[in-house]
This record gives sequence, structure tokens and C-alpha cells, in this order.
Amino acid sequence: MAEFKKVAEIIDGKKVAGDIRKELKREIDEWVQNNNNRAPSLVAVIVGEDPASKKYVENKMNAAKEVGITSKTIKLESSATEKDILNLINKLNKDDTVDGILVQLPVPEHVSERTVCNAVDPRKDIDGFHINNMGKLCVNNETFVPCTALGVMELIKRYKIKTFGKNVVVCGRSKNVGLPMAMLLHSDYRNELPGLEATVTLCHRNTPREELVYFAKRADIIISATGVVNLITPDMVKPGACIIDVGITRIQTEDGKTKLVGDVDFDGVSKVAGHITPVPGGVGPMTVAMLMKNTFQAAKSLKGTT
Amino acid sequence: MAEFKKVAEIIDGKKVAGDIRKELKREIDEWVQNNNNRAPSLVAVIVGEDPASKKYVENKMNAAKEVGITSKTIKLESSATEKDILNLINKLNKDDTVDGILVQLPVPEHVSERTVCNAVDPRKDIDGFHINNMGKLCVNNETFVPCTALGVMELIKRYKIKTFGKNVVVCGRSKNVGLPMAMLLHSDYRNELPGLEATVTLCHRNTPREELVYFAKRADIIISATGVVNLITPDMVKPGACIIDVGITRIQTEDGKTKLVGDVDFDGVSKVAGHITPVPGGVGPMTVAMLMKNTFQAAKSLKGTT
Repeated sequence: MAEFKKVAEIIDGKKVAGDIRKELKREIDEWVQNNNNRAPSLVAVIVGEDPASKKYVENKMNAAKEVGITSKTIKLESSATEKDILNLINKLNKDDTVDGILVQLPVPEHVSERTVCNAVDPRKDIDGFHINNMGKLCVNNETFVPCTALGVMELIKRYKIKTFGKNVVVCGRSKNVGLPMAMLLHSDYRNELPGLEATVTLCHRNTPREELVYFAKRADIIISATGVVNLITPDMVKPGACIIDVGITRIQTEDGKTKLVGDVDFDGVSKVAGHITPVPGGVGPMTVAMLMKNTFQAAKSLKGTT
Repeated sequence: MAEFKKVAEIIDGKKVAGDIRKELKREIDEWVQNNNNRAPSLVAVIVGEDPASKKYVENKMNAAKEVGITSKTIKLESSATEKDILNLINKLNKDDTVDGILVQLPVPEHVSERTVCNAVDPRKDIDGFHINNMGKLCVNNETFVPCTALGVMELIKRYKIKTFGKNVVVCGRSKNVGLPMAMLLHSDYRNELPGLEATVTLCHRNTPREELVYFAKRADIIISATGVVNLITPDMVKPGACIIDVGITRIQTEDGKTKLVGDVDFDGVSKVAGHITPVPGGVGPMTVAMLMKNTFQAAKSLKGTT
């Protein structure tokens, strides 16, 4: 006899990201044709030979092509100096045919990531990592929001997850995911960049497990971005809660192969939660789609046609 | 027979602020004498006739005098345009005899507070309200931290309140207190601007009362900056917790006089808490002392002698 269980609705990031790319394609085509504009353009800078970085950049370039954004990848040797990178960024900043610049992180250890992020013209900073844009995010001014945080926000909106006055636990305090996430979630909706009005608890590596459980049990939404496999287990999830899994870790399976998993015990938690994102196919594709959105935004702003 | 109760230790902000002013006075005298520098200098801009603003600026000017900072207040009519204010700020930005600039908030309604805050040279922005400095705070770079948040941090340090892995509830999400507070509290201590490694829950006007109670009961530290009288009551405080009251509200007493109170039911909560700040005499004086610290910092940075 079949077993019937109420299981969480899967938040299909892959599908939503596809929808967004289609929407963007339409908007970009229209913008180009109606205003006689050149296509928006994106340059990715990659330093060194990290295979994961190469794969990420490749995905971004494919998405760009799909939506009608011209793109180019510039590769520098891992021996490139900070000055080499800054010179290149400076050239791209001045180049009127470039709308969006992304420097794929991480950069080699002898280069300051912060210096590199702050070197990108804030108007071309489609990753939203420049301190200027982070400051704008703080005060809820319109800006480039880091793509993963923006992607999660978009999923929350499209799946009509309620946030006003709700409790959210964010696990992980990274500057590109956890922190901007907390910023968007807690703040006032009556802003240039509207917030989601939730009560936010920001947990991290120094949050004791029992405290995380105390907060998670009360959470209407849990967003986990830590890279800790099985951090979120069914016993700590409130029935019906929305679980967003930003973690991506490659693990070895029993048969010697590898697979990607998130921070969440998906099988267990999906029997308790109301909504859940899978890994892969959840947040990942949204990050790339949002990068395209930000690039188009940059093109429009630089052209003065927002 | 006398009743013996264990009551909270009072965090004496007035005394600590006095200590800090004395320390600063010594440091500034030394810096001026040893380097043949002119005294650090501070200009306050006040627009309109708000009596509270006038009082605040007066307090700041008195503190400046006490620690050996030259200060000046420039008053503009409430009819001054945004352009008038920006012109003045621009002049002060260029003036080499000015180290710190503060525009007393609020500005009149026809003026954009954000535009004014962003007009101050970030190197002279002793209030830490420029988006550039807020962005630096986000990524834990050395910067001017908004004075009230810096003052609370200093009290926590001087009273040796533990924060590592502890739970903190911040009530109020203002950009000058609640948000920077949350930023300092949650972040990693291994940074240029070291964080306090706490788990932070940021509550605000749309946090339901019962949820606030849930979080507060588990909190090792509660920081309330809302202006809601009696928001924090004894039943929601964990025995031994540290209570920091940033609220200031003027209320009418039964005899028709007025007095200043905070967000915390002081009499009730001090019977449960381990530490508590009074209002007045708690956080208030610290804000002014930290402004002096930031001004001295600005003078040193501009002179290149940090």
C-alpha cells in the first residue's frame, strides 16, 4: 500500500531562474530595439586556475548569452599581482562598452579581496561587493544587492512566503550572503529598497548548537549558508516552515562517486517543512539569474534609462 | 527588618564617559605637544530651532572644550535649502582647519537627510553616517562607527560583559543605533574592526510582543533603542542578563513635572538583571564621549599620524 505523507513543496529555483532569464531576454531585446542601444555587456575577471571558479564563470557566460548580454572572460595567471588586477579593473571601469564587471572570488592569497572589490566602479559593481553599495544596502537605498541574497529574496516573493513580523534564522554571516540577507529581511518595507519586515536572528560558527536549535524551532524561515552538511535537521524545524538551503558541499558517496549537498538534511526536513529548496537546483541557478538582472540594471543606469 | 535583595550592578555611563574624556584629554594634549599640531577641531551644523537639537549640540561643544578639541557651531535658519546646506558642508570639507563635521539630525523636512549625510567627506564623518563608512562597518574595516553604538560597545568592554557565543537581542533597527549595534555584535573578532561574536536577534516595531519575549528570555544581553516606554519588563529578562537602555523619552509625572525615562522598567528589571544602565546617566554621556574620540581619530588620520 502506498504511504501518503504531507511533504514540503519544493521551491524550484531552476525553474524560477529559467522564467527570470526568459523575462530578462524579452526585456533586454525590447530595450535594445526600442532605444537603439547596444546589448548590455558583462566582463568576468578570473585570476588563477581554480576549477570551481572556472565552472561558475562558464555558467554565468552561458546565462548571459541566453538573455542577450554580451560577455567576455578575461583570465589572469595566478601569479598576477594586485597591481595587475587593479590596472585591468581600472581599464574596464573606463571602458564605455562595459556595463558590468565581476571579479570571480576567491582571488589568490597575495591579493587583497577587499581592495579588488572596492576598485570596481560602483556603477558597474554587479556583485554588490563595493563598500559603497554595501552602505547603500544598509540604508535601504537602491543598489546592486549581492546576487545570492537577491535570488533568495526573489524565491521568497515568487512562492509567496510571508515575512512581515515572521521569525527568520540566518545561518552564516558571510558578507556576500548571510549579512545582506539579514539586511534585506529585517528592514522596513517603506524604503527605496523595500525590506521584508521580519525579525532576524543571525547565527554563525560561534552560536552554540542548543541556541541555534532554540531559534530555529521558532523560525518561520530558515536560511542556511554555511557549508556545514546536515546542520539543519528535522527535529529543529517548525512544521510548515520555509527552508532555504544556500550551502553547497561536494561529498563522497558510498559507491565512491561524489555529489553536491546543502546544509539541510533534505529527506528528513522535507517531511516537516512547508517549503524547501533542493541542492542542486535551488538557490544556485537564482544567483546566476540575478547577476544577469544586475547587469541589465547597470546597463540601463549607465545609459540613464532606468 | 531590612530586606536584602541581589540587585543589578549599575553600569555607570556617566562615570565611564568622564573617564574617557580624561583619557582623551591626556592623549590629545600629548599629541598636540609632541607633534606640534594644532588642536583637533570639530564643526557642528544645526539647521532650524529644535530645542532638543540645540541642547545636544551644546553638550557636545562642552565635551569638546573639556578634552581640548576646538569647536564651532554653525546655525542655519530652518528655511535653509538643501543646496545651502550642501554648500556649507562642501566648504567645511575643503577647510584644512576642520577635522570633524557633524550635521545635527533631524534636518528640516524639505532637506534629504541621506543626501546631507553623504555630502560630508568620509574622512571627516565623525558620526559614521556616510554610506561609505557604513559599508566599511559592514565589512569590518576600520571606520567611524556611529557614536551611540560605539559607546555601548565600550560599556560592554569596560564592564567585562561576555559576548562570545552569547545571545543578544537588539530592539530597534535605526540606522544610527540598532543596525550598527547588530553589525558590531554579530561579527568575527578576527577583523580590522573586531566584532563581538554574539548571536544577534534584531527586533523592531513589527516583531510581535510574544516573539520579542521568546527571544528576550533567552538573551544574555538586551539592547533597547526604541523610545517605547516600559518595553522591557522583568518577566522577560533572564536572571543575570545585561540590560542596555538606549531609549530616551520625556514623560509627565504625577506632580505635573517631566522626567526622562528609557525603554526599560528600571525598578523591576534591576531586580532580575545582572547589569543595567540607568536613564539618564547610562548610554547618553557615552555617545558624546565617543564623538570626541571619533573627532580625535579624524584629526590623526587627516594628519597621517594614526
